[in-house]
Amino acid sequence: MRIWTFDTTLRDGTQGEAVSFSVEDKLQICLKLDELGIDYIEGGWPMSNPKDREFFERARELKLKHAKLTAFGSTRLNRNPVQKDDNVLALVNAETPANSIFGKSWDLHATRVLGISLEDNLKIIADTVRFLKEHGREVIYDAEHFFDGYSNNPDYALRTLEAAKEAGADVLCLCDTNGGTITPRLTEIVADVRKRFDGIIGIHTHNDCDLAVANAIAAVEQGATHVQGTMNGYGERCGNANLCSIIAILEAKLGHTTLGPDKLTSLTSVAHYIAELANLPLRSDQPFVGRSAFAHKGGVHVSAVLKESASYEHIKPGVVGNRQRVLLSDLSGRGNVLYKLKQHGLGERLDDAACRELLDHIKQMEYEGYELEAAEGTFELLVRQALQPNVSFFEVVSYEVATRQIGNRDSTTTAAVILRIDNGIASHTTTGHGPMNALDVCLRQCLAQYYPAISNVRLTDYKVRVLDTKPGTASKVRVLVEWSDHRRSWATVGVSENILEASWNALLDAIRLELMRFADKDESIEKAVEDYCWGV
Amino acid sequence: MRIWTFDTTLRDGTQGEAVSFSVEDKLQICLKLDELGIDYIEGGWPMSNPKDREFFERARELKLKHAKLTAFGSTRLNRNPVQKDDNVLALVNAETPANSIFGKSWDLHATRVLGISLEDNLKIIADTVRFLKEHGREVIYDAEHFFDGYSNNPDYALRTLEAAKEAGADVLCLCDTNGGTITPRLTEIVADVRKRFDGIIGIHTHNDCDLAVANAIAAVEQGATHVQGTMNGYGERCGNANLCSIIAILEAKLGHTTLGPDKLTSLTSVAHYIAELANLPLRSDQPFVGRSAFAHKGGVHVSAVLKESASYEHIKPGVVGNRQRVLLSDLSGRGNVLYKLKQHGLGERLDDAACRELLDHIKQMEYEGYELEAAEGTFELLVRQALQPNVSFFEVVSYEVATRQIGNRDSTTTAAVILRIDNGIASHTTTGHGPMNALDVCLRQCLAQYYPAISNVRLTDYKVRVLDTKPGTASKVRVLVEWSDHRRSWATVGVSENILEASWNALLDAIRLELMRFADKDESIEKAVEDYCWGV
Repeated sequence: MRIWTFDTTLRDGTQGEAVSFSVEDKLQICLKLDELGIDYIEGGWPMSNPKDREFFERARELKLKHAKLTAFGSTRLNRNPVQKDDNVLALVNAETPANSIFGKSWDLHATRVLGISLEDNLKIIADTVRFLKEHGREVIYDAEHFFDGYSNNPDYALRTLEAAKEAGADVLCLCDTNGGTITPRLTEIVADVRKRFDGIIGIHTHNDCDLAVANAIAAVEQGATHVQGTMNGYGERCGNANLCSIIAILEAKLGHTTLGPDKLTSLTSVAHYIAELANLPLRSDQPFVGRSAFAHKGGVHVSAVLKESASYEHIKPGVVGNRQRVLLSDLSGRGNVLYKLKQHGLGERLDDAACRELLDHIKQMEYEGYELEAAEGTFELLVRQALQPNVSFFEVVSYEVATRQIGNRDSTTTAAVILRIDNGIASHTTTGHGPMNALDVCLRQCLAQYYPAISNVRLTDYKVRVLDTKPGTASKVRVLVEWSDHRRSWATVGVSENILEASWNALLDAIRLELMRFADKDESIEKAVEDYCWGV
Repeated sequence: MRIWTFDTTLRDGTQGEAVSFSVEDKLQICLKLDELGIDYIEGGWPMSNPKDREFFERARELKLKHAKLTAFGSTRLNRNPVQKDDNVLALVNAETPANSIFGKSWDLHATRVLGISLEDNLKIIADTVRFLKEHGREVIYDAEHFFDGYSNNPDYALRTLEAAKEAGADVLCLCDTNGGTITPRLTEIVADVRKRFDGIIGIHTHNDCDLAVANAIAAVEQGATHVQGTMNGYGERCGNANLCSIIAILEAKLGHTTLGPDKLTSLTSVAHYIAELANLPLRSDQPFVGRSAFAHKGGVHVSAVLKESASYEHIKPGVVGNRQRVLLSDLSGRGNVLYKLKQHGLGERLDDAACRELLDHIKQMEYEGYELEAAEGTFELLVRQALQPNVSFFEVVSYEVATRQIGNRDSTTTAAVILRIDNGIASHTTTGHGPMNALDVCLRQCLAQYYPAISNVRLTDYKVRVLDTKPGTASKVRVLVEWSDHRRSWATVGVSENILEASWNALLDAIRLELMRFADKDESIEKAVEDYCWGV
């Protein structure tokens, strides 16, 4: 069956505590969602803030291929005639093909929060829908708190839907605004609404009970054909229903049609793209699209997955554009590492003794807190060093880095690095924006005359984690640095009580890896670690 | 109805990509879960690794008040008589009151993964259950891949349950091992099993479709009375069913009995405790127990929540030991800040002009990337500075910090800080474990003679986030530092292109805040920012 998708990442999603988009971000996301095949994109609430107004102005220039841009707002204020209500006029002025408007379906909200009579509430719903229809808009009526309202006073909740329907609403969307409705109860209520109303019924759920996706799916099973949610489940409190999961289930598990042909394989990359613009890490355990969604750690699972991939995978990862990964860990033992290497024909280049030594080295590093699972670059370097134990490009003689600040002037940072290369000495001193930058510049300058290729890589992220909590500020830290050469990305890791030493170690690994890759172009090595290193 | 809770955080939870516990951690978690009122604690798989064996040895000393410790393992190997099977003997030797054993319910798994006949598979199930029953154990039979098995071959899947039941299994636990079963389908299957088997039916679900909690609840609705899951939903791939959500729903929404009287209010603190031992941040949007689970950001929601707390909260946060929070943000405008201050009687100490100035200052800082929502310490400092604009404890004349390392020797870090205090000059130089430590020590030494109280606070976490991605290593970073005085915790924030300058600014804020708190003991200030600062 055709199910219509309604994305509210840009409106309800931004109510999430950590979520914030610039106008430029919002425009980019809009284009991406359109490309993915989303039917409605709710861009914001033009009345609520200047950023959303600016968004709708600039969005007129977007050439959306499929999606209908939607402006959100409330029903008119009780004291205003609809044609003079600022909020409703802002909706008209946003000039979008569709409008979503929310009204009160819970009698208590009408009387206590709005402070108006139940009859007046029906009037403001009907007036607003009718006015927008007269302006040629497709109107999605969001029945706020519908399930709580229905539980408290079913007749009145249904009358609010009737008011919207009679005024011409195209979609009656039932909202579980507080996210507190349990699936069996929600199922009953949607079934009752379906029985009474023809046309399109929509569902809008929140995740306060960890049931948002289940509730959306349950509503579809009862005949809802319009589903609202946000990418990655962003939203207030515990988030909105995760549209990524919903779309994947509707298409890959239940055989419904949502995005259109050949679009589902873009799901993972779009989810990561939006997380990047939100400046939030995408939860690695996020269903379908997370980095760990098809990752296998336990020894039993790994050996079974190798025999029969359906053993521990409910769908083929490629269906949603994701990948299988096999992880290192104390639970799975050495099997996983060897699997990765042998799978790519490197078993022959690595004898048993070298293998054992590599494994012991990895174990020791993990014991010290290195967490190689997340640091594919450092892992690749270890493998390459095991394959070519006699290759050493340089030795560090010394490095030094200092930051000083006087009064309110800008701080200055200087670094000095001395290396031994081919029995000669290379040294460089520089100032930089900060210690990592200064050390990075120094190191690359030292190496440039010997290895001119050393410059295509840039730092893209930098994460610090305190590993233990010794008294005060003397804790051990792990620094994870992400790098990219515009073709792919990888991370290196350093651990120390000193954040600068940990950063320096991660930097050295990254530089050595660049040199190693340049010197040994055997692509099977890259492929062997690619399971780790598939930055989207 | 009484529903039995079975926690597998220590076994299935540790299959999560980032999850790892020391033996000591596992023992502590065991005690905590026992105190919470969990019925069964699955401690590990003694056969799979030495850490789990050590755990069960040491766990004998634990005096659990309520929970039954459970050792997990597989059915015997086909080639071994049960009394000589190492895995089964390891279960016996673990000396726990209960054992959980997993067997194959999916015919394909028996034939292709184990490579044995369907009849032999039934025998190894029955033999293993019977043997453990003969040793006096309570036996939970985990029917691995039950739902996929039932879909492929219902008769055979049911026969595996029969084999376990006839051999004396106390619980038949149906596992959705791959997490791929959609709720309506799972509901049907559990109903069929319930019809055929009396006694206790259990449910074990995974979150690969974002449905783990919904599936567990659906199974209970069909008559399952034993629910397996992990705290915070830790587990392989997308995680196991989140026991925190399940328990909250069963008790607070459906009226079942799980933990026993007055235990549910500990849920939030236990969830945070376990996250801390796992060294993983607890997802702030985690249902029921997350820091944002009852946080309100949007202006409309905030004003409605203030009028009527049930408006946007599906339960009272205190029921699960959580709290309501009201957030600052561009969406909600100034209302929230003023609300926080006025709510605690500080409106009188802050005139309108000072209020506006404070708000402008906050806006400017957020624009620069300061993210005050997460930095309650810095926010409190701003409020205190607005209340007492003329108080300044010290000025920074200069600071300097340097790290150097020669060859393979340990790195050394030195710092020098010069302050102006009461028209005098205080300076100090020191070496430290790293730059933050060295600067922290210097600063406190400079202040100690003037402000002797300055020493009860310790750094507990340190987070770095790259705010933009300028070429290379020159990006702007935000440093968020968490502090604790053993009574409560708070965070301060610094932003700069230089990680050390950002750290220094966060450190200065923390020190200034300590001094401010010491100088102005008006508790209403602390209470006003406590919504931010309720570190569990």
